[in-house]
Amino acid sequence: MMPEQEKEKEKEKEEVVLDAGMKRYRNGEIWEFEDDMGVSDGGSGVLLGLDGGTTSTVCICMPMIPFSHSQLHSLPVLARAVAGCSNHNSVGEIAARETLEQVMADALSKCGSKRSSVRAVCLAVSGVNHPTDQQRILRWLRDIFPSHVRLYVQNDAVAALASGTMGKLHGCVLIAGTGTIAYGFTEDGKEARAAGAGPVLGDWGSGYGIAAQALTAVIKAHDGRGPSTMLTRSILQTLGLSSAEELIGWTYADPSWARIAALVPVVVSCAEAGDEVANKILLESVQELASSVKAVVERLGLCGQDGKNAFPLVMVGGVLEANRRWDIGKEVTNCISKYFSGVVPIRPKVEPAIGAAWLAWNFFMKEYHKEICGS
Amino acid sequence: MMPEQEKEKEKEKEEVVLDAGMKRYRNGEIWEFEDDMGVSDGGSGVLLGLDGGTTSTVCICMPMIPFSHSQLHSLPVLARAVAGCSNHNSVGEIAARETLEQVMADALSKCGSKRSSVRAVCLAVSGVNHPTDQQRILRWLRDIFPSHVRLYVQNDAVAALASGTMGKLHGCVLIAGTGTIAYGFTEDGKEARAAGAGPVLGDWGSGYGIAAQALTAVIKAHDGRGPSTMLTRSILQTLGLSSAEELIGWTYADPSWARIAALVPVVVSCAEAGDEVANKILLESVQELASSVKAVVERLGLCGQDGKNAFPLVMVGGVLEANRRWDIGKEVTNCISKYFSGVVPIRPKVEPAIGAAWLAWNFFMKEYHKEICGS
Repeated sequence: MMPEQEKEKEKEKEEVVLDAGMKRYRNGEIWEFEDDMGVSDGGSGVLLGLDGGTTSTVCICMPMIPFSHSQLHSLPVLARAVAGCSNHNSVGEIAARETLEQVMADALSKCGSKRSSVRAVCLAVSGVNHPTDQQRILRWLRDIFPSHVRLYVQNDAVAALASGTMGKLHGCVLIAGTGTIAYGFTEDGKEARAAGAGPVLGDWGSGYGIAAQALTAVIKAHDGRGPSTMLTRSILQTLGLSSAEELIGWTYADPSWARIAALVPVVVSCAEAGDEVANKILLESVQELASSVKAVVERLGLCGQDGKNAFPLVMVGGVLEANRRWDIGKEVTNCISKYFSGVVPIRPKVEPAIGAAWLAWNFFMKEYHKEICGS
Repeated sequence: MMPEQEKEKEKEKEEVVLDAGMKRYRNGEIWEFEDDMGVSDGGSGVLLGLDGGTTSTVCICMPMIPFSHSQLHSLPVLARAVAGCSNHNSVGEIAARETLEQVMADALSKCGSKRSSVRAVCLAVSGVNHPTDQQRILRWLRDIFPSHVRLYVQNDAVAALASGTMGKLHGCVLIAGTGTIAYGFTEDGKEARAAGAGPVLGDWGSGYGIAAQALTAVIKAHDGRGPSTMLTRSILQTLGLSSAEELIGWTYADPSWARIAALVPVVVSCAEAGDEVANKILLESVQELASSVKAVVERLGLCGQDGKNAFPLVMVGGVLEANRRWDIGKEVTNCISKYFSGVVPIRPKVEPAIGAAWLAWNFFMKEYHKEICGS
């Protein structure tokens, strides 16, 4: 090893210890792979884009190449790592942090990079609802990465939007998976959101909301409060239960929202087979989802003064995927286009974690240009 | 000490060790007070009546006097002990058991009785929804008490009914506190229930349901999906929060259902002050509660073939208490009496735990008579 390299390695080690501090000490094993690596790759470095949802967390590592924006889609993916839920409202803060830290370490380790090569991280994670959430996560990220790394914390909806607009923050995104949220940006940086407050606070259009209403319909049919429905047989069969009463124990045995939301395909099948109760649940969820988009578009004036301006509506999440005859996403866009004739529905071709990496690239380049140009 | 007494004590000790087995060993400290007591009180023994709810758990100890049924109300209360939540769906099974065991020990210790003096226990606990729940709790109670003790496990709704009907299982009870359930019995022992499946499964008339809808209304007003409402200011003020976004963190910071349900008085105040959103929430909860009662009464035919037979409707729980101008309980009975003219609303003068003790007395006496009379 050349003395120059050795010196650099020593310096780097010190830096990591200083910056990562306690966290590195506590979760040392997560970053152990760095010890077996040589010095920093010396290139232009890498970006991390994270999409942290209620069901899973994906981390993408991309090279930090100063492309022009229009070539962004040709940035190659160096590594992709996957982990479980990282919504702190759902699994608690400690588990959420562990998951996020582990998935970043996995992605870096897979492409043979270490933390000192990272130029920017965009962490887009569900459950970030308030500047205090952002601040808390930023403080903790600061403990993991050396001080030169640029860190951006966003709601996961922002990454989903970016995945449909090539990293540009303009338009509205509607996500409906386990949870649901509508999030929008104007070109001059105003933002607004609707829903996304979780199942207790009225996210009825979400996968969880749809499934919880279907379970409720089974209970109501059973105890005489509601009409009988095909959902009873289909859901009990799917879950391997023999009576509606057993649903109660099943429901509360595990607080995972994703486990409930996984019943959405059963509801869709029953609706396709003509069950009225299932159809009513899906139609109401379409209304709920459309009302979230409508609220965001109106508050931001994305549709212009005459209501006819073009704007992108990025549609993301299992509930909106067009893989069924009863196509919830299509019904939502039909409903929205009645209000706003300029809506341009987009189903992204890349996953939200790539959107997060593109955001990291955009944010980094903007700050870099500002510094260079002094503007 | 007479040799006879000594022998009895020895026998009793053995019995407790054999019966209580591991449980006694594990939770030895709960029952330590028994070691300092002399032999059994030798009288006719005592009864335990337990009302285990989502908010609190009450245990009543009464003497086992073979009164006639009409004198039941004059059975004195020997001791009363209170503890926290014992719904296993809400706090988990281990915590629920601890709470139940501790509250029984407290009641016995307060009146200087021990487990060997107990003749019968009626454990009426929320979250008992299925025979398997009953069997699980019975097995565990068997580990605590000597084998001669009669044990009865019921849903807490049954104790509430008994508290309004002097221990007689006939009619319908509607409970609306943190949770809600309607439960009914015919005189020949048929039973039916509606609702009571918890907040995920459609208990919208419950205190939790009312409050969750109010919180949702605040979020919807904030993000533009719903009309503005007085609830925003009132709820934020009550919780000491400064913005609607902070409600999200507050809501998921603690999974306790009772904490959410505690906001019901705020909703009632807003409704009384003329807020339309709050009024709509309360009116819908009245419909939900009435539909639960209707389902039970119809399935059991409590109203007779012409729909006019008299039957008791016992009303229990904070949501139904007549302490406000906007009287949810009165609205529910008004609604019910439109369907069933024979409904006799009862607001019990004693608490459900006393109903549970009366049930224990009734069950015990019935079995005793059967054994004596051989019928």
